[in-house]
Formats: sequence, structure tokens, C-alpha cells
Amino acid sequence: MTKVTTGATMSLDGYIANASHGGFEHLFQWYANGDVETPTANPEMTFRTSAASARHLRDLNERTGALVVGRRLFDMTNGWGGRHPMDVPVVVVTHSVPDGWKPEGDSFVFVTDGIESAIDRAKALAGDKEVGVNGGTIAAQVVEAGLLDEVHVDLVPVVLGAGIPLFADLKIAPLQLDGPITVVEGNGVTHLAYRVRPAA
Amino acid sequence: MTKVTTGATMSLDGYIANASHGGFEHLFQWYANGDVETPTANPEMTFRTSAASARHLRDLNERTGALVVGRRLFDMTNGWGGRHPMDVPVVVVTHSVPDGWKPEGDSFVFVTDGIESAIDRAKALAGDKEVGVNGGTIAAQVVEAGLLDEVHVDLVPVVLGAGIPLFADLKIAPLQLDGPITVVEGNGVTHLAYRVRPAA
Repeated sequence: MTKVTTGATMSLDGYIANASHGGFEHLFQWYANGDVETPTANPEMTFRTSAASARHLRDLNERTGALVVGRRLFDMTNGWGGRHPMDVPVVVVTHSVPDGWKPEGDSFVFVTDGIESAIDRAKALAGDKEVGVNGGTIAAQVVEAGLLDEVHVDLVPVVLGAGIPLFADLKIAPLQLDGPITVVEGNGVTHLAYRVRPAA
Repeated sequence: MTKVTTGATMSLDGYIANASHGGFEHLFQWYANGDVETPTANPEMTFRTSAASARHLRDLNERTGALVVGRRLFDMTNGWGGRHPMDVPVVVVTHSVPDGWKPEGDSFVFVTDGIESAIDRAKALAGDKEVGVNGGTIAAQVVEAGLLDEVHVDLVPVVLGAGIPLFADLKIAPLQLDGPITVVEGNGVTHLAYRVRPAA
């Protein structure tokens, strides 16, 4: 069975972005506070992290076969310039295919009939690897649909005070998880993984 | 110098209580999910935790010399029945001494002239031990006053979806911390400690 996971860098007070959908200069410090380089599919983007975080990123890259993201994230990143830094196909959940894009490309597949269809499509693309889900609203939809297996949090030591929560407007709260099943200490970040407890 | 710390059990999405100031059946599971007993000053209250969490609680007890709490927490717990479970003097920040209580007792000291005065008083009571600050609003006031040295979070694997944040209405966000300086893995809880970065 293809595992479906979501991951995000999160402030100590539970936010994946500040209230203006920014704050990444605080959240993403750990991607650039070490000396071990991790290249990405984008030649202009190389992470420089602690050795522990570099191993964590390498493991994540190796086990991820496809991603599911929301239209907001696709638009904000301008389609990651044509190819996601993780170098895997990305399924975009959207109401309509954006202008100038094919519905089905090697890098992006646009799915207009809902989250379950998007997850199915990503599972087929991922083969025997995992599907990663990115973006708080999309992640909440996936967990509400009972399709999420794990939650990965990169917890960073900053208090933002307000912002966009990990699972925005979660309709099935409280949601009990199990774990952490792994704890990796980086520099200025703690990589935590939790398992979603199956519905009784 | 007497160290001032604050600690709270926090949901994975950053809440120390749900929106109704409850939710403790989810947050406090780790106090009762193991078989190592930690007695408290209250004969009717014994924690049963993992061995790691029991060591963590014992260390916390041994290094804490006094507490500072807000009036809300004092009222909610009805003055902990007369003595705080940690068996240390408690300084209560309040506008007025509650009916039926002496301004200065062995168990409780009521301070009506603000948070800095309360911290000073607690430091004197703590001797060479630490001062612990409990309650999100009070903790935010202490960090805003530049008086907090460490933040201790007992992170539990539940998503509450909404609630009372760790530092409610923090006026100096974003607040950068250093660490975690310690990570202790319990059963259903991760004990994390961070150092407040001194103002530049």
C-alpha cells in the first residue's frame, strides 16, 4: 500500500506561515544554517543544513515518489519554475487547469475532480514510493477523507504569535496521532514524525 | 542568577487548552499512560508515566523553588486545595487578594503590583532554585518583560484544531528561541526545552 504523508516546517506555536502567508525567513532558517549541501532539481536552489537534517532530507527525497499540492501553492511558487525541487511529478488539486499548462505533463498533473481522485492519481505515479501532501488546507482535506498515514513536522524554535495552522479548519479535531515514531535533532530544527491513528 | 522558566503541555498544533479552556483529557494523557509512579504533594494525585517522563518530572520538581501563576489558574484549581502539587510556594498575580486568603501564606503569596514584582518575589522564595511560570497569559507577560530564560514544552501527538495558544497575544512576536537544549522522549509526549535568546 502506498503511504500518504504530509510534512511542514512549523513554528513552536503551531504555524506553517505567518498571518500574511509569509514568515519563511524565520521558519526556513534550518535549510541554510549548516554546511552539508543537499542539491535540488533546481540548480539555483541548494540546501545547506546540519548533517542530521541533510540525512533527513535525503531520506525524504528517496522515499517520495509523487506530491499532491493545492492550487494556491502551485500559483505562489509559479509552478516551481517548471519542475518541483524534489524532482517528482506533482498532482495539483484545482478547479480548472491554469492557462498555458497541459492537463497532463511529466512534471504536473492537474486534477479537477477532488482530493480523493488526486491521491489516487499520485499513488499511481509514485509506484512503490510514498505520496507527499503539501499545504495546510490540502493536508486537512486529505486527513478528513481518511487518506493520510503520517504527519511529519520540522519544528523550529520561533514563536510567530499568529498565522496559518498546520491543519487549517480541521473538521475532525481532536485528531489523535501516535508517536513520535521518529525524532531527528538538526540544528535549529527537530524533525518529528507521527502516525495517524486509523478511525475506530 | 535565578533562572525563570515556563512550561506547558502543548498539542501538536500549538494549543495548551482547547477553545473552551478544556481538552485536558487529550493533552494530559501522558501523565497517566505509564507504570512509573510520581507522587505529588496532593495525596490524591499520583502521576503514572513512562520511566523517561518520571525522570523528567523528578528533575523538574527538584530544580523548581517557586511558581508564578495567574489568578485564573489559581481560581480554576481552587488554590490546588491549599497547596500546589509541586509542594513549593506559589506567587499569584492578581488585582486583589481573594476572599478568605491571607496576602502572605506559606503556600500562596498574592502580588497586586504587577508581573515584575511577582517575579522578584518568587526569586526570593526560590533561593538557589528556579522559578516556574504557569499559564499562557502570564507566561506571555513575563517574556514581554524580558524576564523569561527558558521555555519547556511537553509536546503531545494530538491536533486540537483550535484553542488557547502557548503565548496568548504575544506582543513581541516573532520571538526567536535557541534549541531545543534538551529532548526527552516519553510515551505519547516529547519533552522539549528552549532558551529565550536575549534581546540584542
